[in-house]
Amino acid sequence: MTALWLIVLCGVLSVVYAIWATSSVLGADAGSPRMQEIAGAVREGAQAYLRRQYTTIGLVGIVIFALLAYFLGVYVAIGFAIGAVLSGAAGFIGMNVSVRANVRTAQAATTSLAGGLELAFKAGAITGLLVAGLALLGVTLYFGFLVHSLKLAPDSRTVVDAMVALGFGASLISIFARLGGGIFTKGADVGGDLVGKVEAGIPEDDPRNPATIADNVGDNVGDCAGMAADLFETYAVTAVATMVLAAIYFAKTPILANMMTLPLAIGGICIITSIIGTFFVKLGPSQSIMGALYKGLIATGILSLIGIALVIYYLIGFGKLEGVGYTGMALFECGVVGLVVTALIIWITEYYTGTDYRPVKSIAQASVTGHGTNVIQGLAVSMEATALPALVIIAGILVTYSLAGLFGIAIATATMLALAGMIVALDAFGPVTDNAGGIAEMAGLPKEVRKSTDALDAVGNTTKAVTKGYAIGSAGLGALVLFAAYNEDLKFFIAGKNAYFQGVNPDFSLNNPYVVVGLLFGGLLPYLFGALGMTAVGRAAGAIVEEVRRQFREKPGIMQGTDKPDYGKAVDLLTRAAIKEMIIPSLLPVLSPIVVYFLIYAIAGGGAAGKSAAFSAVGAMLLGVIVTGLFVAISMTSGGGAWDNAKKYIEDGHFGGKGSDAHKSAVTGDTVGDPYKDTAGPAVNPMIKITNIVALLLLAILAH
Amino acid sequence: MTALWLIVLCGVLSVVYAIWATSSVLGADAGSPRMQEIAGAVREGAQAYLRRQYTTIGLVGIVIFALLAYFLGVYVAIGFAIGAVLSGAAGFIGMNVSVRANVRTAQAATTSLAGGLELAFKAGAITGLLVAGLALLGVTLYFGFLVHSLKLAPDSRTVVDAMVALGFGASLISIFARLGGGIFTKGADVGGDLVGKVEAGIPEDDPRNPATIADNVGDNVGDCAGMAADLFETYAVTAVATMVLAAIYFAKTPILANMMTLPLAIGGICIITSIIGTFFVKLGPSQSIMGALYKGLIATGILSLIGIALVIYYLIGFGKLEGVGYTGMALFECGVVGLVVTALIIWITEYYTGTDYRPVKSIAQASVTGHGTNVIQGLAVSMEATALPALVIIAGILVTYSLAGLFGIAIATATMLALAGMIVALDAFGPVTDNAGGIAEMAGLPKEVRKSTDALDAVGNTTKAVTKGYAIGSAGLGALVLFAAYNEDLKFFIAGKNAYFQGVNPDFSLNNPYVVVGLLFGGLLPYLFGALGMTAVGRAAGAIVEEVRRQFREKPGIMQGTDKPDYGKAVDLLTRAAIKEMIIPSLLPVLSPIVVYFLIYAIAGGGAAGKSAAFSAVGAMLLGVIVTGLFVAISMTSGGGAWDNAKKYIEDGHFGGKGSDAHKSAVTGDTVGDPYKDTAGPAVNPMIKITNIVALLLLAILAH
Repeated sequence: MTALWLIVLCGVLSVVYAIWATSSVLGADAGSPRMQEIAGAVREGAQAYLRRQYTTIGLVGIVIFALLAYFLGVYVAIGFAIGAVLSGAAGFIGMNVSVRANVRTAQAATTSLAGGLELAFKAGAITGLLVAGLALLGVTLYFGFLVHSLKLAPDSRTVVDAMVALGFGASLISIFARLGGGIFTKGADVGGDLVGKVEAGIPEDDPRNPATIADNVGDNVGDCAGMAADLFETYAVTAVATMVLAAIYFAKTPILANMMTLPLAIGGICIITSIIGTFFVKLGPSQSIMGALYKGLIATGILSLIGIALVIYYLIGFGKLEGVGYTGMALFECGVVGLVVTALIIWITEYYTGTDYRPVKSIAQASVTGHGTNVIQGLAVSMEATALPALVIIAGILVTYSLAGLFGIAIATATMLALAGMIVALDAFGPVTDNAGGIAEMAGLPKEVRKSTDALDAVGNTTKAVTKGYAIGSAGLGALVLFAAYNEDLKFFIAGKNAYFQGVNPDFSLNNPYVVVGLLFGGLLPYLFGALGMTAVGRAAGAIVEEVRRQFREKPGIMQGTDKPDYGKAVDLLTRAAIKEMIIPSLLPVLSPIVVYFLIYAIAGGGAAGKSAAFSAVGAMLLGVIVTGLFVAISMTSGGGAWDNAKKYIEDGHFGGKGSDAHKSAVTGDTVGDPYKDTAGPAVNPMIKITNIVALLLLAILAH
Repeated sequence: MTALWLIVLCGVLSVVYAIWATSSVLGADAGSPRMQEIAGAVREGAQAYLRRQYTTIGLVGIVIFALLAYFLGVYVAIGFAIGAVLSGAAGFIGMNVSVRANVRTAQAATTSLAGGLELAFKAGAITGLLVAGLALLGVTLYFGFLVHSLKLAPDSRTVVDAMVALGFGASLISIFARLGGGIFTKGADVGGDLVGKVEAGIPEDDPRNPATIADNVGDNVGDCAGMAADLFETYAVTAVATMVLAAIYFAKTPILANMMTLPLAIGGICIITSIIGTFFVKLGPSQSIMGALYKGLIATGILSLIGIALVIYYLIGFGKLEGVGYTGMALFECGVVGLVVTALIIWITEYYTGTDYRPVKSIAQASVTGHGTNVIQGLAVSMEATALPALVIIAGILVTYSLAGLFGIAIATATMLALAGMIVALDAFGPVTDNAGGIAEMAGLPKEVRKSTDALDAVGNTTKAVTKGYAIGSAGLGALVLFAAYNEDLKFFIAGKNAYFQGVNPDFSLNNPYVVVGLLFGGLLPYLFGALGMTAVGRAAGAIVEEVRRQFREKPGIMQGTDKPDYGKAVDLLTRAAIKEMIIPSLLPVLSPIVVYFLIYAIAGGGAAGKSAAFSAVGAMLLGVIVTGLFVAISMTSGGGAWDNAKKYIEDGHFGGKGSDAHKSAVTGDTVGDPYKDTAGPAVNPMIKITNIVALLLLAILAH
């Protein structure tokens, strides 16, 4: 009980930090009236888009809320609502700070790079800590309410189902936000670049381009709000899955409540270490932006190590744990593995996407011989970039399993995600600097300002790839945890003599053709989903190209600077396109487990045998979707980051610099990388989670 | 015994057909001296390359032969040699016909499209029937020798191991040929296009381009010899795996020998139906080339249906089979499913790569807005193209399993591959027409000739994608069969109280972390392998660009047509590059099962527990490599075909036609698609097979 209140206190601290940081950001100089005018347009567009997006998701959410309330009771439905509302709130608040920090960062960059970095990072940290803090508060308070106020057993069905539903609410927001935001931002980016840079020959962010405000709006709604919702759900789902496993493994032992509290406590302590870490982010004399970010990250990592040791010591001790064959010390070591996996994935992602290393340089080099070789090398790098992260995840699974079995893997994953506050901060500062660069360009600030914001932006490309690699990496490490949650739930219902599960005997062996079918079906989901995402961006970009061409044609004064383009039209067009295009792909993972279950049930002849076959196939599908999803997501996010930075590398004066043929080829690669890294790739992570969570809810519903 | 001789007769028939068709092709008019000179250069280059390639593979082969002889005995090593030599021979002979048929096809196309089609298809049919015939002869004769001459039991270890080693020999040639040939052909193609079309502004196949002969050489060594080796091994491995399963399921029943003969008999009868089918390929009044090919294919399909019914009736009858729960009729129905799966995969591939349908048109349309959108749409199509084939394979597994269990799946796969003669014929005609077009261009034949060969070539792009989809599709359908072979072998050794397998108890359940680790490790192989292949092409192409630039610089007369380029230099350069680059990626699947086994063995603490964990991980790896490999391969081969034909569609006068901006973008897409569809993608199939077969051999070696 005390532990829960302390965890809540950590969550509250993150909110306090966010309020303090917000007031500090808002207190900074907001620049000239022209800059404020531009920032105002971006802010308006972003808010309008999010309003529309949340309204649409709200409608879907109300239907699901009603279904859950009907099938599983009101407490489960409330869990869903809490997850959805908080996930949305983290994105909404973060974005609202972001659209105010952009112009202030541009202004701060007029005096120094350090000033720009400080403001942008502080804005990112607000989103980061709100993501971790609100997720922790939501899970902890609702768990506490159910267990302590309602006096439900921590491992009762209502508590478990309500926690799973909370994860589902978060996931649902997340996939819509990732996909809708991703389509918006990349439709604007690709479309605007094609017609602006390529056709009209005007630079990026030129105010004469009618798509330029939409591009900046997209940075906020996609890269900021979408990403916040994504990490919120990853955090919540992992915490919930670990709690579910604790409920199973430590059922009927006196340490049950403490073991279920453990993932939350790790989350709580890491919020404090993340807050402390943010103060270490300071530009040193080397002026290395990445170095400054690393200082904060390393501080957080080392402090977390100590913090987690303390948490484990006070909560469960380092000695042998009741009911299982491992010690508290072993769980601490699993936490360390989680931190090491995080560090390695960050380091590998930086290697594959940073401008200092072979991969990005090889893409830049390949640009010299043309568009085709740029894309070939980019694709090669994107595929290669999956190997080391996969090996790290494999090693992580092997080590933690040997230390403390499945629960060890769960603790490692939970620890990995406990750093979300800091990691999201690193990511969310990207769109702020990207926007700041846009505002600097549009407001005609001196070239040096743009140079500062560009330097920040290049690092942002890498940190954005890092966050995505981290999110999907945690999904890979946690794959077995989510599958175990499904399997243990299934066992629970079978052992509980539930009427529906009478005679069911699932067989998850690879010898079972239904398992192979499930693996293949799961494997196809990320591919189909990716294809839909890429096509949607292509279509949205095409619409933008048409619209911009129309404006240039009907108002020839735009290009001469005597007439103003209609920015709102492009924003509006993309808003409608993104909302429309996000629906079908988002429903894919929601409906797939249900469709596969009933289809296999029918094909295998119904009855208990049919149910056994169907449960086996759905279980295998949960792993299949991760086996391909891991590779699809990492290749897309790392590859996209590498393409973007290869372009930046050339723009820095290599291989002919800006305007050279190599640069033109690199722009093509960057365009291809855009939907890869910001639409299809990152949306794979929530897709995997939704598939898993819907499967868990399906079990609960079938049991009723 | 009689059945075996009849099967041998079918194999001999294919050789007879090949001899007849060869003399018929060679009897055709070989064109003008200029044409013969060009064709001579192509022939020389191709032969020189294959000599070098086979010498290199030969060295690797001798080492493996010695190892196998030492560990598993001389009969197993001889099996390996038979597989390797015949697989190489099918490719070598096919290519030798191909390099003679190209010039004759160009000459025949001067009079009519029908004449060109007839010659090119006949040349392709030689390769096709030799692939099926030699594979069948090799497996049947060696099996007959071991069982009847040496009086070994059909299910004895020596027979099973020797058959597996035969598949291994074929696979090893195949991966080297696919990869080496693929790197050669696409290095030449991409490099030649970049420096010729893009830099120097001269058309494809212009004789002034020093890389143009190498490009034509590449068509033969990659698309013809490489593909032949690939299908040879797929055919042999599937036949062998089905025989292994028959040996297990029907052990100690009187129908054992007949059940083991069944896959061979199906192969035999389908050679006859394929030969008959080739005579149905005739251009109708509609002048539809695809229609003419379909006529042959449909004839083969219908006749095969009847033939397989007869084979099953005479060999095992339609009634209930001894020792199992299904009938001969059910096995016939599985054969029908195999044919239906083949037809559906062909139809789906044509949809995704043909110029008449939405996907290719959408890529062409996207080319209008630039290079970037072309590539984005192409990637979207490539990913989407995996969904339907995967669903067809899933349906095939479900239906055949419900009909006759695992053996039903095996029979369906064997039937699918029994059509290899006809399918390879459809494919191998592609490089002949591609070459014919090149020769027509270089020899300055009238434009109409080039138009005819271009029309043939466009269909060739689709049929090439079809064959690859078919090869990988059969791997997907057969995945469970290969895994079952591994699993049953393992059970055999455990039950046999083999000293090494004492106390081993593999657990292939998805709950087992070693299974998840195996799935992830298997999943990473196609990605890493694909990345290596793509990079190799990029490097080889870059070297060609440098070489061509050097020649243009040092001999300015080349561009004015007063000086002759040094074609041999480019061929030589590519030969060395391809041979060097093919080694490392080819060793990846050979070494992976071994490394994973011993690594997991050590990590899991050694002893029986370590062995159990390691066998589980290796087994899971075999499925993991298919789960991602299926999607990687289909997306690459279909996507590449679609890109190529989108370019052709624009060249036919759509969206601005040749020389327009859309065309330039489409050329970029085509360049990207080249290594996708002709190097990395198709090599995934032999890679999957090798991983499987090495795992089987590893079991046999550990048992000794």
